[in-house]
Amino acid sequence: MSSGTITLYIAASVDGFIATEDGGVSWLEEFQEEMEDGEGGFEAFFASVDCLLIGSKTYEQVLGFGEWPYGQKPTYVVTRRDLPRTNEAVELFDGPVDELVERLKREYEHVWLVGGAQLAQTVLRSDQLDRLHLSLVPVLLGRGIPLFDDAGEPHDLTLLDTITRDTGIVEMQYDVGP
Amino acid sequence: MSSGTITLYIAASVDGFIATEDGGVSWLEEFQEEMEDGEGGFEAFFASVDCLLIGSKTYEQVLGFGEWPYGQKPTYVVTRRDLPRTNEAVELFDGPVDELVERLKREYEHVWLVGGAQLAQTVLRSDQLDRLHLSLVPVLLGRGIPLFDDAGEPHDLTLLDTITRDTGIVEMQYDVGP
Repeated sequence: MSSGTITLYIAASVDGFIATEDGGVSWLEEFQEEMEDGEGGFEAFFASVDCLLIGSKTYEQVLGFGEWPYGQKPTYVVTRRDLPRTNEAVELFDGPVDELVERLKREYEHVWLVGGAQLAQTVLRSDQLDRLHLSLVPVLLGRGIPLFDDAGEPHDLTLLDTITRDTGIVEMQYDVGP
Repeated sequence: MSSGTITLYIAASVDGFIATEDGGVSWLEEFQEEMEDGEGGFEAFFASVDCLLIGSKTYEQVLGFGEWPYGQKPTYVVTRRDLPRTNEAVELFDGPVDELVERLKREYEHVWLVGGAQLAQTVLRSDQLDRLHLSLVPVLLGRGIPLFDDAGEPHDLTLLDTITRDTGIVEMQYDVGP
């Protein structure tokens, strides 16, 4: 029996892309700082999580930013490749995602599903996603990597909270139902 | 020189679909009433528009609802087919959409772009969309007809207003920039 919560905490453009076609997120930069601080900001969220689950492309992207920003929090990278482990808290996982999620929810109280889209969709499809924190960035990207693709089943959402930021970001926190 | 405003006022699921794959919108029904009334509701919006622009599939769908709900407001249906005109305020248009929009913005103060997705994307791509009123319905549909597909150019948005409704709908009103 798992008891932990897994939250997809992610930013997307209003047209639903999490990155440009080549994985670029520079369009997010001007909004980054505002999303960090204050009530309901990322810092408070990050303090609440005790484990990270991340896809291989997103992991590589974070590595490319330079210093690993997530300290020593246990981090599970879903990948079939032999990626560099940036510190000893990072573990590579090549197996069934649903079993890993089941295990993480048993072992940890709050798991942050960092992304990317493919991993998020996998967790959603196996009905294991508990929370969605979506930061809707006031941009239409036009094309890119979609957060949600066209291959899932319906889920009811319950809105728990909304935050509107000065730059026009609207953050919505949902409970993900069956 | 056009001076009118054209607003895409539309509801979508959190994963960005405006209808199920077969065009169904029954998942919207339980939210409909709440979106109608009160401050910032659809009724007030509808009172402010003096012209409707609608795609052929959406038009047919509205016809299927029974009585035409939009009274005698001038309505332009973009279609190549010989669809029934539900009343004399309805005009069928088979020509370049950008020229029609240019004309409507010259002749009317506030045009409601009813949908669907294809027409909305066409207007957006020709840089003619002024406003976006997006009602984000707390549902993940999983699959369906996407509001935004993967074929546009970037646009900046300016958030003008946000309304959070009791059922968890979040409505965002944006100014659409270049």
